Amino acid sequence: MEIMQVLHMNGGMGETSYANNSLLQRKVISMTKPITEATVRALFSTVDATFQGSLAIADLGCSSGPNTLFAISEIITIMIDLCEATNHELPEFQVFLNDLPGNDFNTIFGSLLPRFKEKLSEQMKSKYGASATLPCFFNGVPGSFYGRLFAQESLHLIHSSYSLMWLSQVPPGLEGNKGNIYMARSSPPKVLRAYYEQFQRDFSTFLECRGQELVVGGRMVLTLLGRRSDDPSSEECCYIWELLAIALNEMVSEGLIEEEKLDSFNIPQYTPSPKEVRIEVQKQGSFSIDCLEVSEVNWNVFDTDFDPNVVSKDGEYNLARCMRAVAEPLLIDHFGEEIMDELFKRYKAQLAACMSKEKPAFVNVIISLKKIT
Amino acid sequence: MEIMQVLHMNGGMGETSYANNSLLQRKVISMTKPITEATVRALFSTVDATFQGSLAIADLGCSSGPNTLFAISEIITIMIDLCEATNHELPEFQVFLNDLPGNDFNTIFGSLLPRFKEKLSEQMKSKYGASATLPCFFNGVPGSFYGRLFAQESLHLIHSSYSLMWLSQVPPGLEGNKGNIYMARSSPPKVLRAYYEQFQRDFSTFLECRGQELVVGGRMVLTLLGRRSDDPSSEECCYIWELLAIALNEMVSEGLIEEEKLDSFNIPQYTPSPKEVRIEVQKQGSFSIDCLEVSEVNWNVFDTDFDPNVVSKDGEYNLARCMRAVAEPLLIDHFGEEIMDELFKRYKAQLAACMSKEKPAFVNVIISLKKIT
Repeated sequence: MEIMQVLHMNGGMGETSYANNSLLQRKVISMTKPITEATVRALFSTVDATFQGSLAIADLGCSSGPNTLFAISEIITIMIDLCEATNHELPEFQVFLNDLPGNDFNTIFGSLLPRFKEKLSEQMKSKYGASATLPCFFNGVPGSFYGRLFAQESLHLIHSSYSLMWLSQVPPGLEGNKGNIYMARSSPPKVLRAYYEQFQRDFSTFLECRGQELVVGGRMVLTLLGRRSDDPSSEECCYIWELLAIALNEMVSEGLIEEEKLDSFNIPQYTPSPKEVRIEVQKQGSFSIDCLEVSEVNWNVFDTDFDPNVVSKDGEYNLARCMRAVAEPLLIDHFGEEIMDELFKRYKAQLAACMSKEKPAFVNVIISLKKIT
Repeated sequence: MEIMQVLHMNGGMGETSYANNSLLQRKVISMTKPITEATVRALFSTVDATFQGSLAIADLGCSSGPNTLFAISEIITIMIDLCEATNHELPEFQVFLNDLPGNDFNTIFGSLLPRFKEKLSEQMKSKYGASATLPCFFNGVPGSFYGRLFAQESLHLIHSSYSLMWLSQVPPGLEGNKGNIYMARSSPPKVLRAYYEQFQRDFSTFLECRGQELVVGGRMVLTLLGRRSDDPSSEECCYIWELLAIALNEMVSEGLIEEEKLDSFNIPQYTPSPKEVRIEVQKQGSFSIDCLEVSEVNWNVFDTDFDPNVVSKDGEYNLARCMRAVAEPLLIDHFGEEIMDELFKRYKAQLAACMSKEKPAFVNVIISLKKIT
């Protein structure tokens, strides 16, 4: 759990450099909005059967930055619109914000939530008049989502974005992965197998726990980094780490990092294919699949449609900052702090070289599930 | 809310000086254990009707110190024992820890909870064998208990100790309370009325909110600082603040504090009689009273049966530290930080003089309520 702790303290895609992660993750949440909307709509159609006046929503891996309440905000807005369109009374909302115990919940409670509630209150007033309020109750829930977090059948809707590709631990059995830090073309089959098996264990545990916590008919929308290909060492998911491995190997060859140090370092992540996700869902058996899609976001998210005022237009600079926020806690833990500036200078150069020739993209796997039994 | 914020950040009786508050508050929780036990037992007798496999407990004003999980721990232990004695399956526990948004939830989640869970796990193992676990899910709930905090009919049991005597604000209309900082023998009747009316508004709002949140048959155990007498300016509840007022007035007469500054300072607390508590409960109408008691704790809690290793045996030193933890945030907010050392030196002298002649005590009002409609 130590590594997960570090990772999640920096939340999903990390929170030390807000502007960057903000844009990437926000873009992903925006891209998946149609699926979230369809999911909430499907849930809403069973409103009388399951809500009993209060709708319980959880966001898993909420982090503590500007995106912490973004998905929740979208879900509540969708619900308000649905109730308005169908003349339904608004339910009370119970919101559960989960991340590991090291997450900065004080920041969520002390500054993000008050701002969010103010915005929500304005939204309600502009829609329903000055006296309108929305009963919305917030809870912080510390703990790993690879274990039970909520009472049985206590939730209606679970959302998680960019958190579930993180494994509960570095898989055992990666000794043969020399020179690499993740799955790579040169990884021996047993390394790829070890990664996959860890994903299978973790993801099925996740499904098992959430299956107990959701009411029958409850829904779950999950977005995770993944790949299209059946090959787990495919470039589309591994290249971003291979470039970091190149920078690390350079530093080994120059004597700046010990070879053994590098050989014992591996990223506790697994970027599954939609097929692999489907297999686990079917095996576990608590859920039916409403929707399973793949989408892409350019590494250079900033050459698209995002606010150019917020961040640099220098794509590799932005991506390097983003990856540093994600990977640095892990790297510091293993290699120490001293080499970080040098390492990320080299990594940025690798990213720049790559992005000048190609248009690489992150692949997202999005799945919408319904609790059936 | 500003003042409540400050107060609750220091939790009920304050948390800046752990050892002291720890002992005083812990003693109070221990003293009320028979009532808590009877309440849990009564709730347990309706186990099949209301729990549906999971028992939802809230602690209001939990603070973030060594007592944060003390009452919850007692309640869980009582439940475990009851289940064992009656051969009932253990329910899942949902625990909601509430305090104002400025409370240090990171400390609760990052260090208090992990220690607590470890202890709980050992307790289970020693009772039921190595594989025994207790499903217990923890939530942090930021917000004032003078407003809704939880979804309707979502709780079975509410506990609150040493928090509810704090009002939501300094009552309006205290202009005539010159020279005093709380209700006092020399306070004009309209000041006493203003305090009482603020208590009535706040406590009835509290009952209204909790009435909505508890299931029918749900229970509530509340302990608050109070008094026996019908006279709200009775020494038993006001003396502790009168001694602080004496110290402040001394400093006014020596030119160390401006008179106007002192005249505009009042403590946002109300220490009700059992009769006043009963009247509000009956007026509000959601609850029946199972038990309403009064007990006392010596100001010098340390001359009784508590662990002499933890704190000084110097009673007035301990009490002065305790009161400083409680009152200092309020005092700093109004008078500034510079005069604090001098003020508390004088206050300690007042406490010492008083305690050398008398055996003053804090009066606790304890009430156990059942949600009836």
